[in-house]
Amino acid sequence: MAEEVILLDFWPSPFGMRVRIALAEKGVKYEYREEDLRNKSPLLLQMNPVHKKIPVLIHNGKPICESLIAVQYVDEVWKDKSPFLPSDPYQRAQARFWADFIDKKIYDIGRKIWTTKGDEQEAAKKEFIEALKLLEGELGNKPYFGGESMGYVDVALIPFYSWFYAYETCGNFSIEPECPVLIAWAKRCLQKESVSESVPDPEKVYEFVLVLKKKFGIE
Amino acid sequence: MAEEVILLDFWPSPFGMRVRIALAEKGVKYEYREEDLRNKSPLLLQMNPVHKKIPVLIHNGKPICESLIAVQYVDEVWKDKSPFLPSDPYQRAQARFWADFIDKKIYDIGRKIWTTKGDEQEAAKKEFIEALKLLEGELGNKPYFGGESMGYVDVALIPFYSWFYAYETCGNFSIEPECPVLIAWAKRCLQKESVSESVPDPEKVYEFVLVLKKKFGIE
Repeated sequence: MAEEVILLDFWPSPFGMRVRIALAEKGVKYEYREEDLRNKSPLLLQMNPVHKKIPVLIHNGKPICESLIAVQYVDEVWKDKSPFLPSDPYQRAQARFWADFIDKKIYDIGRKIWTTKGDEQEAAKKEFIEALKLLEGELGNKPYFGGESMGYVDVALIPFYSWFYAYETCGNFSIEPECPVLIAWAKRCLQKESVSESVPDPEKVYEFVLVLKKKFGIE
Repeated sequence: MAEEVILLDFWPSPFGMRVRIALAEKGVKYEYREEDLRNKSPLLLQMNPVHKKIPVLIHNGKPICESLIAVQYVDEVWKDKSPFLPSDPYQRAQARFWADFIDKKIYDIGRKIWTTKGDEQEAAKKEFIEALKLLEGELGNKPYFGGESMGYVDVALIPFYSWFYAYETCGNFSIEPECPVLIAWAKRCLQKESVSESVPDPEKVYEFVLVLKKKFGIE
């Protein structure tokens, strides 16, 4: 069967990056379509009428919305290569727990770092490091969260690394001295083509954050 | 193998109810342990150190946190009886999408109904009905979201029905005339022992909400 795979995405989105990495890990060819979020395409509105958000993975005409759901879908459809989720139910539950933790914490706290100042920003930086340390604890001395190879949690988390430079610069702090194990993990992931080709240059993300700050009237 | 299954829970929690229903649907015997959320047990803090929240399912000493993750875990471990998730990857993704929608919308909007007044409350009521109508659209003319039998979305949503009376009474509105198909679905679910024995009396939930309102100084 000829597979038609389209990804509606926006380049700095860590959620979009997850789907890009998942498809790249599985070796799935796809058409990337950049969305203008101020002027969303009719296709995006049709394919994700509930949330009207990217990323949307469209597989043979059918939409899959929400990045972690799309990553699981990719894992289940192209199941012969590089499984993301382990087969053991308990290990699967643990991977889902940490991916959910990343969804609930990392994006929002990271956002606080570049949208606030003073005490609020200091609190966000502290909370951010604490969340990363919890993730470091889960990683332990494994090369990847998935063990010997990249798994679900790796795919969920690594996109945010491309935002770390923006967080650090806006927040005037440094993550590596606090979380060296996590940074070593991130650099390990970046050595994989599936990751390096799917994530933007951190400096470009920082420039994008500066544009957002200006737009929102922050600073 | 002797299975030891413990559920740390709090009776009005719709998230806890999900796990109760999932275990009941699978016919899994378990020990229910009510938590005092103002004085959490050492076991809860030990088993869910990250979020410190109920419900926590403890299976042979190992914790599974976050209700939807626990429901999927129950589905995967006791897989021979009443599967919650379909086998087709696209159908699975759709079920996960709607369960996620319920998580992101229903609880928060419902909470707004009983914690706000005036225009804010009116907006919450409108938003609540809109969300339920989207769910009605997904249900269509199927008996259950899962098709001919209860599935993942049914387990995710039905607990909130025990809160509808509290929402309606606090918000002075009526859901059934707006969403008759959804209410018919809810009543159908309640006919199942796995549901009726796992959810509290709506009047008790309302009394609990009144206690919360008093505690939070609302009214």
